[in-house]
Amino acid sequence: MILARVVGTVVASHKEPKMEGMRLLLLEKLDPITMNGKNDFVVSVDCVGAGTGEVVFYATGSSARCTKQTEGLPSDASVIAIVDAIEKDGAFTYRKSQ
Amino acid sequence: MILARVVGTVVASHKEPKMEGMRLLLLEKLDPITMNGKNDFVVSVDCVGAGTGEVVFYATGSSARCTKQTEGLPSDASVIAIVDAIEKDGAFTYRKSQ
Amino acid sequence: MILARVVGTVVASHKEPKMEGMRLLLLEKLDPITMNGKNDFVVSVDCVGAGTGEVVFYATGSSARCTKQTEGLPSDASVIAIVDAIEKDGAFTYRKSQ
Amino acid sequence: MILARVVGTVVASHKEPKMEGMRLLLLEKLDPITMNGKNDFVVSVDCVGAGTGEVVFYATGSSARCTKQTEGLPSDASVIAIVDAIEKDGAFTYRKSQ
Amino acid sequence: MILARVVGTVVASHKEPKMEGMRLLLLEKLDPITMNGKNDFVVSVDCVGAGTGEVVFYATGSSARCTKQTEGLPSDASVIAIVDAIEKDGAFTYRKSQ
Repeated sequence: MILARVVGTVVASHKEPKMEGMRLLLLEKLDPITMNGKNDFVVSVDCVGAGTGEVVFYATGSSARCTKQTEGLPSDASVIAIVDAIEKDGAFTYRKSQ
Repeated sequence: MILARVVGTVVASHKEPKMEGMRLLLLEKLDPITMNGKNDFVVSVDCVGAGTGEVVFYATGSSARCTKQTEGLPSDASVIAIVDAIEKDGAFTYRKSQ
Repeated sequence: MILARVVGTVVASHKEPKMEGMRLLLLEKLDPITMNGKNDFVVSVDCVGAGTGEVVFYATGSSARCTKQTEGLPSDASVIAIVDAIEKDGAFTYRKSQ
Repeated sequence: MILARVVGTVVASHKEPKMEGMRLLLLEKLDPITMNGKNDFVVSVDCVGAGTGEVVFYATGSSARCTKQTEGLPSDASVIAIVDAIEKDGAFTYRKSQ
Repeated sequence: MILARVVGTVVASHKEPKMEGMRLLLLEKLDPITMNGKNDFVVSVDCVGAGTGEVVFYATGSSARCTKQTEGLPSDASVIAIVDAIEKDGAFTYRKSQ
């Protein structure tokens, strides 16, 4: 799975019927050490109620369809977790503020 | 899913029989912040009636086959939405003109 | 799907039994605007009788197995169309010579 | 499969229900010749009890779901082996210390 | 499929049970024109008895599981052919020595 930050949303009124009602997040991939954005973006279906600014990870390919919300949908990127903390070599590179 | 602009079409009279009747779009991937093209192109099956110049997103891999039009087809890239707006950090980076 | 030019063939007498009889093409990915090769190569199963020099597009991943010839085969790249023309913003960047 | 070093863990209390109980590793891809990290990271489900510092390889895409622990899960990256040794041209580039 | 040279092997005693008995090859992707290695490596299941130094191609993703040896295995890269010759524009860029 790929770590990313929710930076916005994508609105698309005219879309594949199966995608109706899905919340579409604009994600920016990030470097989990510096926590800087990589200027590389992807549109992802939200499966966990993630909000702007939150650090998440998303599943790609057919695995993006292995959730209750996305089964059978043409999603190739689904946010499946909101990240609380990233730990590297015993130290936190990221901790979600409460 | 990946954001792209429809920049043209691809004509192929000799093709896999299952692809008969499919409209083939030439897409250029774009940077959703600057909205500039990335000079990176892909051929995609049109599932939503997208026209040249429109901003869309497409699904890749097996997810590209999870639409009514593309079920069982050898498509690995299908346009599944026409984008109305892209919002980043509360501001629009793109809004479709009416 | 990815646009490429057929630049040669690959011969492999010792291979997965299911691949017996498959014609294996060496493809070079191309820029559909300049039509120059990108010096990036892939081996692909030929599903349409493409010849050297022809512009084609191929399907990747599981979609590469969604043709009559490649069903169940371990092919992750199958040529599914010979391109007649590529049109960008109303002008042809490529037209196949007759 | 891709060679990587376990460099940390990712904590996510709010996630897709199917991912409950899965241990999430932060992996850094590595060059198997120099054994240096590539500064390219991925979150992976641990299927083999790998610990920080260990060299592993992981499977991607739908293959990441072909283990007892990950069947049906939205995992697109699963650690499936702890590496004991990497041999190149008859010499070891890596041997796990006992 | 991707062209590569077998440059070594990977030993992993502790691994996903389904991978028991599989021979794991270290492959270096190569440029099929110059035949130089690209310093880009992948671990692949051997389905054809390939030896060090041989030029092969491997299948990726779910197609890597479409062989008798790898069915149901978490392999995302399987060597499915030993290359005898690569021909580009009528000339050989590679011929296996006898």
